[in-house]
Amino acid sequence: MRERERTKRMNNFILYITSIILTFSYVQSLTVWPKPATTTNSGEIYQLSDQERNFDFKATGYVSNTLDEAFERYNGIIFRRNNMLQKARNLNSKIVLDEDSIINGVDVNVLTNDLSLTLETDQAYTLSIGSPRVQISAQTVYGAMYGLETFSQLISREGFVNGTKITDKPRFQFRSSMIDTARHWLPLETIFAHLDAMAYNKMNVLHWHIVDSQSFPYCSYTFPTLCEEGAYTQTHLYHREDVQQVIDYATNRGIRVIPEFDTPGHVQQGLITIKNLLTPCYDTKTGKPDGTTGPLNPTLDSTYNFLTQFYAEIKDVFPDKFVHVGGDEVSFACWQSNPEITKFMKAHPNITTYAELESYYEVQLLEILKKQNTSYIIWQEIFDNGVDILPDTVVDVWKGGGWEAEMGRVTSAGFHSVLSAPFYLNYISYGLDWTTYYSVEPTNFTCPTDGPCDKSLVGGVEQCMWAEFVDATNFLPRVWPRASAVAERGWSQENVRDLVEAQVRIQEFRCKLIERGIPAEPIANGGSGGEFSYCDQEWQPTYRTPWN
Amino acid sequence: MRERERTKRMNNFILYITSIILTFSYVQSLTVWPKPATTTNSGEIYQLSDQERNFDFKATGYVSNTLDEAFERYNGIIFRRNNMLQKARNLNSKIVLDEDSIINGVDVNVLTNDLSLTLETDQAYTLSIGSPRVQISAQTVYGAMYGLETFSQLISREGFVNGTKITDKPRFQFRSSMIDTARHWLPLETIFAHLDAMAYNKMNVLHWHIVDSQSFPYCSYTFPTLCEEGAYTQTHLYHREDVQQVIDYATNRGIRVIPEFDTPGHVQQGLITIKNLLTPCYDTKTGKPDGTTGPLNPTLDSTYNFLTQFYAEIKDVFPDKFVHVGGDEVSFACWQSNPEITKFMKAHPNITTYAELESYYEVQLLEILKKQNTSYIIWQEIFDNGVDILPDTVVDVWKGGGWEAEMGRVTSAGFHSVLSAPFYLNYISYGLDWTTYYSVEPTNFTCPTDGPCDKSLVGGVEQCMWAEFVDATNFLPRVWPRASAVAERGWSQENVRDLVEAQVRIQEFRCKLIERGIPAEPIANGGSGGEFSYCDQEWQPTYRTPWN
Repeated sequence: MRERERTKRMNNFILYITSIILTFSYVQSLTVWPKPATTTNSGEIYQLSDQERNFDFKATGYVSNTLDEAFERYNGIIFRRNNMLQKARNLNSKIVLDEDSIINGVDVNVLTNDLSLTLETDQAYTLSIGSPRVQISAQTVYGAMYGLETFSQLISREGFVNGTKITDKPRFQFRSSMIDTARHWLPLETIFAHLDAMAYNKMNVLHWHIVDSQSFPYCSYTFPTLCEEGAYTQTHLYHREDVQQVIDYATNRGIRVIPEFDTPGHVQQGLITIKNLLTPCYDTKTGKPDGTTGPLNPTLDSTYNFLTQFYAEIKDVFPDKFVHVGGDEVSFACWQSNPEITKFMKAHPNITTYAELESYYEVQLLEILKKQNTSYIIWQEIFDNGVDILPDTVVDVWKGGGWEAEMGRVTSAGFHSVLSAPFYLNYISYGLDWTTYYSVEPTNFTCPTDGPCDKSLVGGVEQCMWAEFVDATNFLPRVWPRASAVAERGWSQENVRDLVEAQVRIQEFRCKLIERGIPAEPIANGGSGGEFSYCDQEWQPTYRTPWN
Repeated sequence: MRERERTKRMNNFILYITSIILTFSYVQSLTVWPKPATTTNSGEIYQLSDQERNFDFKATGYVSNTLDEAFERYNGIIFRRNNMLQKARNLNSKIVLDEDSIINGVDVNVLTNDLSLTLETDQAYTLSIGSPRVQISAQTVYGAMYGLETFSQLISREGFVNGTKITDKPRFQFRSSMIDTARHWLPLETIFAHLDAMAYNKMNVLHWHIVDSQSFPYCSYTFPTLCEEGAYTQTHLYHREDVQQVIDYATNRGIRVIPEFDTPGHVQQGLITIKNLLTPCYDTKTGKPDGTTGPLNPTLDSTYNFLTQFYAEIKDVFPDKFVHVGGDEVSFACWQSNPEITKFMKAHPNITTYAELESYYEVQLLEILKKQNTSYIIWQEIFDNGVDILPDTVVDVWKGGGWEAEMGRVTSAGFHSVLSAPFYLNYISYGLDWTTYYSVEPTNFTCPTDGPCDKSLVGGVEQCMWAEFVDATNFLPRVWPRASAVAERGWSQENVRDLVEAQVRIQEFRCKLIERGIPAEPIANGGSGGEFSYCDQEWQPTYRTPWN
């Protein structure tokens, strides 16, 4: 008996020691992506209540549907990521911290009822992890959701979490992802998954390059032929209800949806069905139309009538105050070939070059938007061409060569800039490339010699996934986690740039994305050289054969 | 009444004309990938019986489970690819060809009962499409399956098919895909989907680079510590039953499974648990072991004892007569540092260089395999080092620089060669790259000046997907349809190399892969420039959120 008692005690002691070691090993490595502004660790270890039903999310400030739905999501993320916590809870039954260390819920204090999403939206939050309640406080529900996201990342698979106080806010207000649904169409499921991944990365703008010359999947209720004739097929469409679903899904996650209808270039499919809109190109030898079309015809009233009606609809369908009007890469060859355009320029002596003709077009377009009280983001060419733009205009700097100088010129002129140029993720290469995006510093430019510039006008960063070679088969693993590098550059403080430290966190974060259903691809070689890029829980594909 | 009758007749006439136009438009574009050797078209159009139950597959020659299971699969592929034919059949109710044009089944005549899979397996078939029965004839069930695959690709989504006679056989006997499950592990579901895609591409060898220095997921029953200690985790494993499932799945599709256990280099995880197997490396300054290990120790009997036992197990687990023994990229630094190895070399005056020591190792290893009656594929270094190899050895030519000269040397020495060098699909870049692989001509080399070479010894081609940056999240869209370019180069005749014609077929084939559940990525820019790289039926992702 004595022997048995001694063995039992020894076993209990071993269990106790093991539990402490295990507990620490569960908790020690958990990190947040993108990295918060300030984090302090109390040294305490807490444990989530081991039953999902004994854990609750409570609004202690302003309530909203947005917050309620966020509670639903984070309950799932914390307790049901692929049922792994279910397994973990069995483990927990062996390692239970004392009652003082149990967390039974989260109190979320939203201090205002402002549900708007703009460049000025307050996105800051504070998070205090302790027992029995975690405390999150924020000016807006969107800040509060970022607090929930941070908290969710800190909980180990077994339900342990460090005592942590975090004060956090984004460095840049505008952290965007551009998707292109014209070169290849994307199903709504893929867009939804992408929006979730953006929320996990605290990104807040979906720049939806929805149409282009290749196809026009946006179904306009004013001009139904645009998608009826301009989409690849009548299954490659975004009806108004589809667009509304994307907007709702995004808004619920603090993400603005800014559509781009690029003009006067990058146009063909769909718009070709509108009479007198695209410029007919002429064969320079025969002097006759050659059957092709070029950019919008800037010389006709019908063009501006179309734009007035079309943008009135866009204002109705998309709630954001901003649209992206494009304006990049306008080819002049077709305008040059067209005798009507030549005649128009002769009749307007102040338009002597095609760049001036392009500016003439943009002036009219922006005047229409001004009258409709719509603000605009522009690709940099419109700014470069000296078009008169409204003070709240955001200039999207995309040209790879010399973006630093351009950032200087834009901010020196007093406009907000968004930096896309170094973040074109459609360019791929063998090997690790997230470090390239991560190492960019958006404020690393000198102001022009002719004037000062205000670096606080750097509005943010935007990763672009142009869809030349991307569709639903490969979109998500190609974007994630490479875009996470851009997300942290946009959110975290300027001094967060240690690649070795970031490597550990982004690797951990990739596995969290996989647990949440996002097929984020590996960003490091397998186990060699001390790097471990496998995940404890790997991606679980579902393969549906045609015969089963 | 008369008016109504006239309208009805007119409607019927319009329906008739429409049906002819639609029928032709359904059928005209259907093509086969990889392109068959000879195809003749009768000009007739046939229609599959519009009810799945009125269509049957019948063995008119030798029967086998392999053939029965192929019938199951192709029934699914033809009639149930994502339920699209279901929709199509409703359409068919309006367009019905006359009774003479209805096909009610396929007769498959397998002329031998040889179920072995070797470099000599007869893979030829003939296919004759007509009513009421399609005829397929082949020496082996594997040839017959290729006939079924070709037939399935020619049927339009609406069930129409051209009267076609095809005589077909592969140009090269060995058409391989190398997967690497050591740098990143792949779940069985991904391997199964890959094997299906290989079968659709008429590829017939899975070269399974199953272990490497990074991890050892293969669970050996002789040496259980290999995977217990060497796998990333105890979920990153291939148990014997898993391996058997892969072999069964592959064999059923005419695909050989050739495992690679690379030695003496590319070793660490797992093998480090075997005493006296890996070479201890020494610190050249202190003259003491530095705690790291290098290649297998070629000087110890224990090494060869291990290999004897291990390869006896491999022969038991993997039915193919061949194993791939690796032998690439052996680093000499560790051997150089080790005083025991220096001593051994001094005691063996015929071993004066480390290359000779490497050859000494290979001679012993290959002798073990010879005794076990196992044949081998080797990476080119073993051949390059002049090791005595058996006449049936296959040399895998992988070095990028100068593969043409190497192919000349290998075939001149009388050995079968397999060309991997230009087909490393893990190297990615922006833009269209399938054309690069497609344009390679494996026999485009000159024989060495010191002797003739026999180009019929070019055994085939192998595409490699090294897994430095690839796992289940991105494997399938990264491999397919880029590997299809290699597949057609391996199967089709030498003169099949028109990129414009192939572009149309590979685009059509990509969409067929998607219909069959393989997420094959786009290989061309969206609709611009007359290229259309969308699919009528796009990839349908299933997105599982953690909260639903």
